Amino acid sequence: MAKSGAKSVKSKSKAAPKAPVMARSPLAPARFPDLANVRGVRLAGLSVGLKKHRGVKDLMVAAFAPGTTAAGVLTRSKCPSAPVEWCRAILPRGKARVLVVNSGNANAFTGLAGDLQVAQTAGQAAHLFGCRAQDVYVASTGVIGEPRAPDYVASKLPEMKRALGASNWPDAAAAIMTTDTFAKGASRKVRIGKTLVTISGFAKGSGMIAPDMATMLGFVFTDAKIPAPVLQRLVRWASDESFNAITVDSDTSTSDTVLMFATGQAKGQPRIKDVGDKHLADFRAALREVFVDLAQQVVRDGEGAQKFVTINVSGAESKRAARAVGLAVANSPLVKTAIAGEDANWGRIVMAVGKAGEKADRDRLSIAVGGVPITRLGQLVPGYDETPVAAHMTGREIDIDIDLGIGRGRGTVWTCDLTHGYISINADYRS
Amino acid sequence: MAKSGAKSVKSKSKAAPKAPVMARSPLAPARFPDLANVRGVRLAGLSVGLKKHRGVKDLMVAAFAPGTTAAGVLTRSKCPSAPVEWCRAILPRGKARVLVVNSGNANAFTGLAGDLQVAQTAGQAAHLFGCRAQDVYVASTGVIGEPRAPDYVASKLPEMKRALGASNWPDAAAAIMTTDTFAKGASRKVRIGKTLVTISGFAKGSGMIAPDMATMLGFVFTDAKIPAPVLQRLVRWASDESFNAITVDSDTSTSDTVLMFATGQAKGQPRIKDVGDKHLADFRAALREVFVDLAQQVVRDGEGAQKFVTINVSGAESKRAARAVGLAVANSPLVKTAIAGEDANWGRIVMAVGKAGEKADRDRLSIAVGGVPITRLGQLVPGYDETPVAAHMTGREIDIDIDLGIGRGRGTVWTCDLTHGYISINADYRS
Repeated sequence: MAKSGAKSVKSKSKAAPKAPVMARSPLAPARFPDLANVRGVRLAGLSVGLKKHRGVKDLMVAAFAPGTTAAGVLTRSKCPSAPVEWCRAILPRGKARVLVVNSGNANAFTGLAGDLQVAQTAGQAAHLFGCRAQDVYVASTGVIGEPRAPDYVASKLPEMKRALGASNWPDAAAAIMTTDTFAKGASRKVRIGKTLVTISGFAKGSGMIAPDMATMLGFVFTDAKIPAPVLQRLVRWASDESFNAITVDSDTSTSDTVLMFATGQAKGQPRIKDVGDKHLADFRAALREVFVDLAQQVVRDGEGAQKFVTINVSGAESKRAARAVGLAVANSPLVKTAIAGEDANWGRIVMAVGKAGEKADRDRLSIAVGGVPITRLGQLVPGYDETPVAAHMTGREIDIDIDLGIGRGRGTVWTCDLTHGYISINADYRS
Repeated sequence: MAKSGAKSVKSKSKAAPKAPVMARSPLAPARFPDLANVRGVRLAGLSVGLKKHRGVKDLMVAAFAPGTTAAGVLTRSKCPSAPVEWCRAILPRGKARVLVVNSGNANAFTGLAGDLQVAQTAGQAAHLFGCRAQDVYVASTGVIGEPRAPDYVASKLPEMKRALGASNWPDAAAAIMTTDTFAKGASRKVRIGKTLVTISGFAKGSGMIAPDMATMLGFVFTDAKIPAPVLQRLVRWASDESFNAITVDSDTSTSDTVLMFATGQAKGQPRIKDVGDKHLADFRAALREVFVDLAQQVVRDGEGAQKFVTINVSGAESKRAARAVGLAVANSPLVKTAIAGEDANWGRIVMAVGKAGEKADRDRLSIAVGGVPITRLGQLVPGYDETPVAAHMTGREIDIDIDLGIGRGRGTVWTCDLTHGYISINADYRS
């Protein structure tokens, strides 16, 4: 306690600058949701001085009951951060006791020094929590290319352990933020058999941004008892339906990480052996909801975003093709700037569909905006009246429906518009 | 003549609006270059009233001597314009007598009406020039989704034929412009054996833009005698080295078209049978120069562009991989906005290299900006001094060198920065 107090004073005496006030995204939910506690999960989110701004939370630790299983999906970047490489190495074991996430430094492009820092974090956590280092998951987000001392995070872990509690969700969600303008959480309760289980999670991300790049991180926790191989399939599927169906600016971080932990502390639950188990049906639906909710909040915090855009693609050759077409539209700077300009520019949508490289036929393509058909079978709808579409474009929530008219594949993608705000955040900032 | 005069008066009485003055790109060359005449090519570029603004050139016709061969590459868009589909159909014949290019309307997403318009254009040109319709190449650029009458272009062809001349290059280059801020041309003279031949060409494009989308069009002419199959291989190769190595905003038009015509009017030239013919060595080099020159001018007219960026990638697994990494960097909104902000943000370059999906190794990656090494073998260069790099970033021409350190593949990509100007042009414009 004395040590902690001394540290706190020292931190103040350094007169760290106050954090700049970032305007909350106009697309943000009204407030951080109530996240239900998850049996077997204790967490903490504190300000321990990793970030340069005074009093800003920058370290999150979650501790799990023995027997907790783990699963995750990691960035496809060929230049991943040291924590991503660590997680990739330990994920096949499928076991977890601790999760450590810091913001302020991404530990990416830091060479051997980065690997050493992760090892020391995991080793110290293992020592403190009485587990193996391979039970400790690590994620980092913040500046890249700046190696830190090996004990950069490890030295803060005793303080974190003392702060653990079952209901520190708002602090935990806040501690992983970088340039996010709001903390992102989601929670559901659902039955597996007759047992009520909880799914709670939080995420961060708002495009890939200042100071060097941001990152999409998502952490989801449940007290259900789910074997690691089943959990891995659930997380892969739910991520494909959510985090892999969003885009802000098409850039992919070196650190993108989604992890899920199942403590198995919900007693009396039927034993789950298979991802297709009928007892899991409601759980799967709830899990998807949590993942989609978190992913959508990331888009709602997109840099400079003024509009939240839902792109539904149907009639594609396959589900994969529908997603690819949706992402081509969602990533098109011309479509995104047209939306920013409140212009229902369907010509740019056609262009983006065409460049996706998926099977398409000019003369079968139908496009609707705000539910109003604009083109049908490759031509402007006769007597098309722009008035209701123009009204829709002035709103915060934009819906684009694209029917390729050639198959049964469908998919939904979420994105935001591309505004002067994005340029200001990313060009006017100087490292 | 009387008819033509009457038409001219009528056109004036309509009081078409004057074209808005677009500021010339700061990256533009000082002036339109002198393009050498090409034996067997006569051209015209006129204002015939296809565009809504008074006196703006909007139709280009080139007529070729009998025996002219043709080759080209066309957009990979799955929703191509009617003219693109027409060109794709006739290209295998490899013969050309006429090229007709209009600006103002792209004839894209116009269904059967679009096909009909192309057919009428080709048919009328064939009638006027005494050739087959399949000898007539057509390209269009401008608004999409607005079908025009079948004789939209065809009715203007007699007037165009009367205006043909050997040296109307500036008019021709101007007539294919849409939102371009300057006309783009390039010319070289080179020997095949002892025969001096000419290569002259022009292009348009400045991103995919207002009023609905713009398009990359390039037309190159030579008096060399080159069989169509050889010409096709030359054009494919030269396009890969140039138009396929540039990007403004990653968007791909429904209408992108590069065509080349060889009239064979340079007498005494050795007969060319093969693309590897040693007599072609200088010609190939000159052709590449013309293509690269035109492609770079397109980038220099990129919407809102303030900086011209050259990205050299070396040490890749293959030439294809080098190009893919270069394009990933060139298309990254975060890299492009950093350049706009004059920030040598190598972290974003690492991110973009990582997301390219090509083989890379964090610990072998070296990056230099303006010739100054920043990272070497995955870490910041010891004692790195930002001063010369920061000075380089304030200039108009930015050079980024990326060495992946894993192979011998290399490639160069050209792009521009992403600025508030791009957003203004594309978001603030209302269709």
